[in-house]
Amino acid sequence: MVQFVHPSKEDITLEGVLEALADPMRLRIIKSLMKVEGCMSCSEAAPCPDMAKSTLSHHFRTLREAGLIRTTKKGVENQNVVRIEDINSRFPGLLKLILELSN
Amino acid sequence: MVQFVHPSKEDITLEGVLEALADPMRLRIIKSLMKVEGCMSCSEAAPCPDMAKSTLSHHFRTLREAGLIRTTKKGVENQNVVRIEDINSRFPGLLKLILELSN
Repeated sequence: MVQFVHPSKEDITLEGVLEALADPMRLRIIKSLMKVEGCMSCSEAAPCPDMAKSTLSHHFRTLREAGLIRTTKKGVENQNVVRIEDINSRFPGLLKLILELSN
Repeated sequence: MVQFVHPSKEDITLEGVLEALADPMRLRIIKSLMKVEGCMSCSEAAPCPDMAKSTLSHHFRTLREAGLIRTTKKGVENQNVVRIEDINSRFPGLLKLILELSN
């Protein structure tokens, strides 16, 4: 069974969050995930339909390891959700502002 | 004569700014620079007194290329200042929030 590693809320760092968001593709993934209630698969949240699966996996792993998303295996798909409460608790206002500024 | 390359205000990107600030040493340099009125030399704004000159130069170049600081040659020293108006004009509230959250 695939196990995904997520940092605990206390281990989410400002530097890690900024680094993970310093990429237009990852910003688009976060925006897609925040548009829906509940989870999205990696392919549903892909910023480009023709993005290589390995590239997509890399972006999701970067977001996960920074503490920005939580991934769970459901059937044959990985389902992702933004850890909005954890991020807002650690860094109030940051994610909202960055998403607004990236428009 | 040393010429430093600075992006124009319009060419400063959100991704570049986030990437440059995703490092605790660079955040400390920015904080030091913002504490003074006017410019600081690289050694005055160094986050650690024993940081290698090449490492320090790398951090200043990263900040400069992201559009966060402006460097000018004055005598034998490079003088640096945060491009606070340009950054606030491009990304209102971002630098202030990141600096607050990094405390």
